[in-house]
Amino acid sequence: MVICRKAVLPAGFFASGIASGIKKMPKLDAGLFFSDRPAKASCLFTANALPAAPLILCKQYLKDNKGFRGIIVNSGNANCFTGRQGIKDAEEISRHISSALGVEPGSVLVASTGIIGKKLPAEKIINAIPLLVQSLSRKGIDKAKRAIMTTDTFAKEITVKLNIGGKPISICGVAKGAGMIAPDMATLLCFIFTDANISKNALDLSLKNAAAESFNCITVDGCMSTNDSIMLLANAAAGNILITQDKYFDMFCKGLNKVCIELAKMVVRDAEGATKFVQINVNQAKSFKEAKCIALNIANSVLFKTAMFASSRNVVGRIVAATGASGIEIREEDLRIKYSPLQKKDVFIDVFLKRGDKKATVYTSDMSYEYVKINAEYN
Amino acid sequence: MVICRKAVLPAGFFASGIASGIKKMPKLDAGLFFSDRPAKASCLFTANALPAAPLILCKQYLKDNKGFRGIIVNSGNANCFTGRQGIKDAEEISRHISSALGVEPGSVLVASTGIIGKKLPAEKIINAIPLLVQSLSRKGIDKAKRAIMTTDTFAKEITVKLNIGGKPISICGVAKGAGMIAPDMATLLCFIFTDANISKNALDLSLKNAAAESFNCITVDGCMSTNDSIMLLANAAAGNILITQDKYFDMFCKGLNKVCIELAKMVVRDAEGATKFVQINVNQAKSFKEAKCIALNIANSVLFKTAMFASSRNVVGRIVAATGASGIEIREEDLRIKYSPLQKKDVFIDVFLKRGDKKATVYTSDMSYEYVKINAEYN
Repeated sequence: MVICRKAVLPAGFFASGIASGIKKMPKLDAGLFFSDRPAKASCLFTANALPAAPLILCKQYLKDNKGFRGIIVNSGNANCFTGRQGIKDAEEISRHISSALGVEPGSVLVASTGIIGKKLPAEKIINAIPLLVQSLSRKGIDKAKRAIMTTDTFAKEITVKLNIGGKPISICGVAKGAGMIAPDMATLLCFIFTDANISKNALDLSLKNAAAESFNCITVDGCMSTNDSIMLLANAAAGNILITQDKYFDMFCKGLNKVCIELAKMVVRDAEGATKFVQINVNQAKSFKEAKCIALNIANSVLFKTAMFASSRNVVGRIVAATGASGIEIREEDLRIKYSPLQKKDVFIDVFLKRGDKKATVYTSDMSYEYVKINAEYN
Repeated sequence: MVICRKAVLPAGFFASGIASGIKKMPKLDAGLFFSDRPAKASCLFTANALPAAPLILCKQYLKDNKGFRGIIVNSGNANCFTGRQGIKDAEEISRHISSALGVEPGSVLVASTGIIGKKLPAEKIINAIPLLVQSLSRKGIDKAKRAIMTTDTFAKEITVKLNIGGKPISICGVAKGAGMIAPDMATLLCFIFTDANISKNALDLSLKNAAAESFNCITVDGCMSTNDSIMLLANAAAGNILITQDKYFDMFCKGLNKVCIELAKMVVRDAEGATKFVQINVNQAKSFKEAKCIALNIANSVLFKTAMFASSRNVVGRIVAATGASGIEIREEDLRIKYSPLQKKDVFIDVFLKRGDKKATVYTSDMSYEYVKINAEYN
């Protein structure tokens, strides 16, 4: 497996990114990802009971369609809590982009991120479609990856290259994160592209597994977004022998896992106002679920996060309190806590429960003055 | 019912507060509450699985004893995650204070608040006991109420006076809060005294009910402390006819509810770094539990709290996201959100679900730069 820290689109994929005017010009706020042939799609969406309009639309497309041709995405407005109008807006964008690309209706997925509860200025995106389509290129990913950013300070991108039965294939992912990140609903937006030839079942399972140990194990502020989506397109352009759950599956999974875990960690590193990257390992639990529950309870405790920010020795007390508050019956005499030097940028915390042999790892950030500032001023 | 915004001890109660040296001298950090006759005790403790040593000891005393004579309390050190040594320390303090007061062993409750995971300097408290006992007085409550404070900026105190069957009785409460406040485990520390003559069953039920609508409906940071305790002593000094669940019960409950809700609100008003007091009403729910779950999800969302701090119109989006993240299946078209002017110090938020006729109210604060600062620097 070769790892490249930049987004390099797999064969058959093209992208573009422009400023449509949703954000203050000339900030990039609209992106397009395109496959020159139909691709299989696997998606994971937020568990929030009030998902944004584009998610509702995508779920419908995923039921009806088999061959997907791309994704259109905007930042600056989440098109969420926008009622029927929001769905109409998403549909209209979808109709226009399919027609401009000359592809089947409903074969382009739609995504949005930004402010909630404000009508999406759909006409701005629709007006931008001709330019988005014209400027599609292999290099366009460099603009597209920036067009999806909100409070992110750097683009999250990675590419891995694998050899499947003698054929080179690649998996490329870009993500945006920053705030409103909590487990079990992916990062805010993550788009992954591969030219691998892979069965739909194998694709679905590989994404589910990869997300479970990456996007679902990170937390910035414990808040579950209405727009979180991971979308994975596989267009088979590499011409490899079909990957199935029995064939080359582990190899493909290794590659996809790497893409997901690295993107997830980048999201945590770029958390709003974060000054630290904290890895919490909960060991000797009765089950993975129990270990993850405790790890998340620690990671989401604002008292823990502010103590981390201060490199305060009081952090042990915060871990004890959060562990005890998890609802799991831990015995004080069994609990052991170890941690690496708190002054460093990367901190590793190990909690031992003496209850079993299962473990879980969660990644999080500290909470700084800057976090409050960014979120107080976000408009 | 007459309400007095100061702590005035009911008949038969005395108190004192001194500087023992746990905190930097001359900060008050040790308090004593004393009843000149045995009192019935009702207590509620944190649901945290790792309760502090004094809580473990108190639970034992509450099982074995019937007549309580007082409470000894220190701030500056929580005596939590201190293992067997912690229990020994609490026991030794208990033994010394009982002996100094000339009362039954195990008849004085013990409470601590402060740093977690550091050995309690028990000898400082033990050395302070003679002075604590000597300085017991009716006015001593003014020092005792300050001796329990940690990051609190003002003492929380209230007294209500009632007439039960022609006899005046009073209920007086003091509390400390500030940080690490979350529902279902009371405030950090709350001590309530009454001279009412009341049956044990009626006392227990009245406290449980009062806490359910006060301390269990406030949240500052969603963190469940290891030390949260509410202790209620009733010494019958008023000489009223026995209050039972059938007799004068509602009247007594009204008084106790008032004490608890006012103290709980003061805790929120004095939340670390808080600039706002926010009341969240969730209406038209299927059950109280459902309404409270959504109200707490909103109140504990740091994105909501930082948006409140900024009086940001983005607050609606935060409420939508937090409501949807509650795990309850809300329909977007049914959800209505109303709020009072965001610039004011007191903000009222009403969420309507169109699912039923139950409601719940939760009180919380915003989250400011100051919150992060206080918690980062807390040592």
